[in-house]
Amino acid sequence: MTEKIFRVNMTDLTTSVEDVPAAWAGHGGRGLTSTIVAAEVEPTCHPLGPKNKLVFAPGLLSGTVAANSGRLSAGAKSPLTGTIKEANSGGTAAQFLARCGCKALIIEGQPKGDGWYSLMVTPDGVTISEEKDLIGKGNFAVAGALESRLPGKGLITIGPAGEMKMAAANISVKDPDGGMRSNGRGGLGAVMGSKKVKFIAIDPRDGKVEIADPEKFKEANRTFAKALVGHPVSKALGQYGTNVLVNIINESGGLPTRNFTLGQFEGHEKISGETMYDTIIARNGKPKHNCHPGCVIQCSQVYNDASGKKITSGFEYESIWAMGADCCIDNLDQIAEADRLMDDIGIDSIETPVAMGVAMEAGVLSFGDGSGICRVLKEEVAKGTPLGRIIGNGAASVGRAYGVTRVPVVKNQAIPAYDPRAIKGIGITYATSTQGADHTMGYTIATNILGVGGKVDPLTKEGQVELSRNLQIATAAIDSTGMCLFIAFAALDDQNCLPALIEMINARFGIALTGDDVVSLGQYILKTERAFNLAAGFTNLDDRLPDFFYTEPVAPHNVVFDFSGEEIDTFWNF
Amino acid sequence: MTEKIFRVNMTDLTTSVEDVPAAWAGHGGRGLTSTIVAAEVEPTCHPLGPKNKLVFAPGLLSGTVAANSGRLSAGAKSPLTGTIKEANSGGTAAQFLARCGCKALIIEGQPKGDGWYSLMVTPDGVTISEEKDLIGKGNFAVAGALESRLPGKGLITIGPAGEMKMAAANISVKDPDGGMRSNGRGGLGAVMGSKKVKFIAIDPRDGKVEIADPEKFKEANRTFAKALVGHPVSKALGQYGTNVLVNIINESGGLPTRNFTLGQFEGHEKISGETMYDTIIARNGKPKHNCHPGCVIQCSQVYNDASGKKITSGFEYESIWAMGADCCIDNLDQIAEADRLMDDIGIDSIETPVAMGVAMEAGVLSFGDGSGICRVLKEEVAKGTPLGRIIGNGAASVGRAYGVTRVPVVKNQAIPAYDPRAIKGIGITYATSTQGADHTMGYTIATNILGVGGKVDPLTKEGQVELSRNLQIATAAIDSTGMCLFIAFAALDDQNCLPALIEMINARFGIALTGDDVVSLGQYILKTERAFNLAAGFTNLDDRLPDFFYTEPVAPHNVVFDFSGEEIDTFWNF
Repeated sequence: MTEKIFRVNMTDLTTSVEDVPAAWAGHGGRGLTSTIVAAEVEPTCHPLGPKNKLVFAPGLLSGTVAANSGRLSAGAKSPLTGTIKEANSGGTAAQFLARCGCKALIIEGQPKGDGWYSLMVTPDGVTISEEKDLIGKGNFAVAGALESRLPGKGLITIGPAGEMKMAAANISVKDPDGGMRSNGRGGLGAVMGSKKVKFIAIDPRDGKVEIADPEKFKEANRTFAKALVGHPVSKALGQYGTNVLVNIINESGGLPTRNFTLGQFEGHEKISGETMYDTIIARNGKPKHNCHPGCVIQCSQVYNDASGKKITSGFEYESIWAMGADCCIDNLDQIAEADRLMDDIGIDSIETPVAMGVAMEAGVLSFGDGSGICRVLKEEVAKGTPLGRIIGNGAASVGRAYGVTRVPVVKNQAIPAYDPRAIKGIGITYATSTQGADHTMGYTIATNILGVGGKVDPLTKEGQVELSRNLQIATAAIDSTGMCLFIAFAALDDQNCLPALIEMINARFGIALTGDDVVSLGQYILKTERAFNLAAGFTNLDDRLPDFFYTEPVAPHNVVFDFSGEEIDTFWNF
Repeated sequence: MTEKIFRVNMTDLTTSVEDVPAAWAGHGGRGLTSTIVAAEVEPTCHPLGPKNKLVFAPGLLSGTVAANSGRLSAGAKSPLTGTIKEANSGGTAAQFLARCGCKALIIEGQPKGDGWYSLMVTPDGVTISEEKDLIGKGNFAVAGALESRLPGKGLITIGPAGEMKMAAANISVKDPDGGMRSNGRGGLGAVMGSKKVKFIAIDPRDGKVEIADPEKFKEANRTFAKALVGHPVSKALGQYGTNVLVNIINESGGLPTRNFTLGQFEGHEKISGETMYDTIIARNGKPKHNCHPGCVIQCSQVYNDASGKKITSGFEYESIWAMGADCCIDNLDQIAEADRLMDDIGIDSIETPVAMGVAMEAGVLSFGDGSGICRVLKEEVAKGTPLGRIIGNGAASVGRAYGVTRVPVVKNQAIPAYDPRAIKGIGITYATSTQGADHTMGYTIATNILGVGGKVDPLTKEGQVELSRNLQIATAAIDSTGMCLFIAFAALDDQNCLPALIEMINARFGIALTGDDVVSLGQYILKTERAFNLAAGFTNLDDRLPDFFYTEPVAPHNVVFDFSGEEIDTFWNF
């Protein structure tokens, strides 16, 4: 079916289906959300006001049978960072939207009253309905209710955090088993809440994505999937999930601990991927689980409690690190419970526990108080109490509220699970990313620590800017395909992987992209995003880490982040 | 006595008395604090970290008998705005510091532990003492205790807000009767708190300021004082205090009401200067009162409760407006009680009630709930509860916490008592001020509304940028003299006033400044402050008002703020 732009105006509650402008035709995923936000959103507007727009776009290959192509990009001006923002998630929504012929869904404007709405997307377009029953409800209740009302449909939803416009609110996307995957970072759930859209249901009916050259596509996908499955990191991810990283990063001395005062966590064994795997097996959970049909890596899992009842899935390293090492909690069950609560509240499971770590430094909670974290999530954040608002607005919000100066954020967004002093490449990514601190924007851990795509010593400055630049460019392109970022390991090491991916795109659209075109695409995306940020008032001085990374050495290597501003700024020389 | 720089290092608890560098010699007050902050503070540092410095400087004429010369400048990088900041206050501290030979007191560094300290300034320098008894106490308790310990000394202090490093915390300066005057804006109390200095006592002993030409000085002061006393605005200020403005600004349609949704307040008569005057007389208060010896305007007053007991003094229009019109409270006794509480807690009585107005829009309190405001001040802000922290960190903090988009701030600082849509000149001042929204930086109300210094129609764009520019330059110079800004009315209208002021400076130092030199001084100060802000990461895009002023017309004139960015930016063409 022909791809269209689906547009929803929440000011006057109208919808339209529009032809795809020529300038947007070659884009998908992040490339498309950033292109649309840059074209249609005033960079200086208030992120929660009517001038901001929330854009969803499946990737170029979403909705096809291409392995791991189920990522959904969401874009807007971020209420957390004030920058342009793209956050992508798994789940089934991207595939369903693509099968509706929806190249992008743009939600603009803002209703005047207090009413709430839901959207239904089908191949015919979008319909808007008033929503009352599910307002104030958690994501799992929304998913359950929708499954009763409209079985088997795709679901994009916000929890109480998004309704309350908290700057750490995420957007949640249902996976095939009713679990939640998240467009996690930058508070896009608050933008959805500001537009009074509680959820978006997606019914593709019998819609299918057209493939220009099915045979070529099938062949390329076979090569591509083989490369993915064969890579050792894919295998580790399949067995231990992303949490395989706890022991690895702890060993490297780059596991931020106790609100970024140490680089190793005493309790690391208790929260490691290995321990998690054993626990899952012992409790009849699932060590492998996919967040969307077609995933061949299956890094997700189902983590049960001692009685065998599911607590959470999509239980990621960064979330486990944040509650574990950063908050000094060595109890995986408490961490799993907090993860489930955050999935239900609809709040970023990186930003929120990093905010808890800052709150611990402020004395609001004690380091190690796992039940305290669960209580604060349930009794404060979910209910929007003043403390809940302080924490739900992220790590910088807690720092400001309590006058804490050790606040690990860049552009107001929490720094994730890799200390930039001990793993310097990732520090360049945090500093220069167009989206605030975000490891996924240029995952130098691959090369700094995992030996994927070569090796760059994490403790020296040499080569880090180039590494981060190359990865950020490649990532921007990958984020446009609908592909999960975990294809990057194979793409970096297996010479058949990237050509097969490009071949699939060419077969899908009947075009002839080259590797150079992909690099150009990545560069275009970064530059488009950067231009938005400059027009929003950002400068090179925002591309810096907080003071304490330059002045407080972190054990065990006793190193600081030592890139000058001028050195960081060379990132943009391309 | 020879003027010196008094320096206190709170990291190693040492003090020194230093010669005045040649580049600082001609400066005083704001010119000196901004020069020192620009020279010694890293623009990108954390305002609450050890790299920030807190600088106090009496004005060039402070400590002399010059009329109205008792203002004390405090400067630092602001934790509220992130800009350079100068806030000045009345009280006796400036006169006492000058008589100690202290040209500037620089407090730098930060102690490691949890201990608190006090400083004692004498003509010999500064001594540091540990302080335990008064920690956690309000300003009036500190003033009372100090009066017992060391009668008749000068006092600069912070209340609980400053100790808790709230971004709206002010620095309080004792007046001759134990009342509090404030270096109100920009959270300088939090900087003092971050340095763990609870209070600064000042004992000038028999120290005196030297006058190079006493006869010329005396003669010039006579002319100057006569000009001040003779101006009609001085007379109105003496009778009704600054609160004379409630009715005037309400009449102009520029009295921001109900969190800046209206330009007139129904209850204006009940909170007006005229009502206040009658109440003061009826309750045996004092309609006139001076905040420092030598003031010939006496805009302060003593406001009693119905039983004749003092509630507050220094009861200003902007504070009364903020609690009154902006929060829709028409009960002057409740407003006075809140004013007293804020003086005791040590928190800005503009920022805090504007924050309450935003909280009212968020539904945290109801508009008009005066007893609610007092309760929140006593039970939340003073105690540092989560809600108290949200409010104590200012209007923008409340907006972020509750996702409110109608947040009247520029550079994160609350817009005060004059609506920039109905009085456009002041909008230019709010936008371009180096310090965030601040009416005192270029008080166009004089010419837009009061007909002082000519007349520029408040509702047209023409002439406003020039007006704001000229006033901001003049104000920066006046803020360097130690003079109260209220000399500006006479200076604008009486041709003898400004020459007499310059003559006093010349007689004091044996120099030969001209009117042109004064203009150059003002320009230098603004440019120095602006350069600091640019180096801290600010751009022209920060010189803008919030969106809603451009899009929501305000009654009764139904006008918006309609200056383009380019028009605003012409401010800096000098």
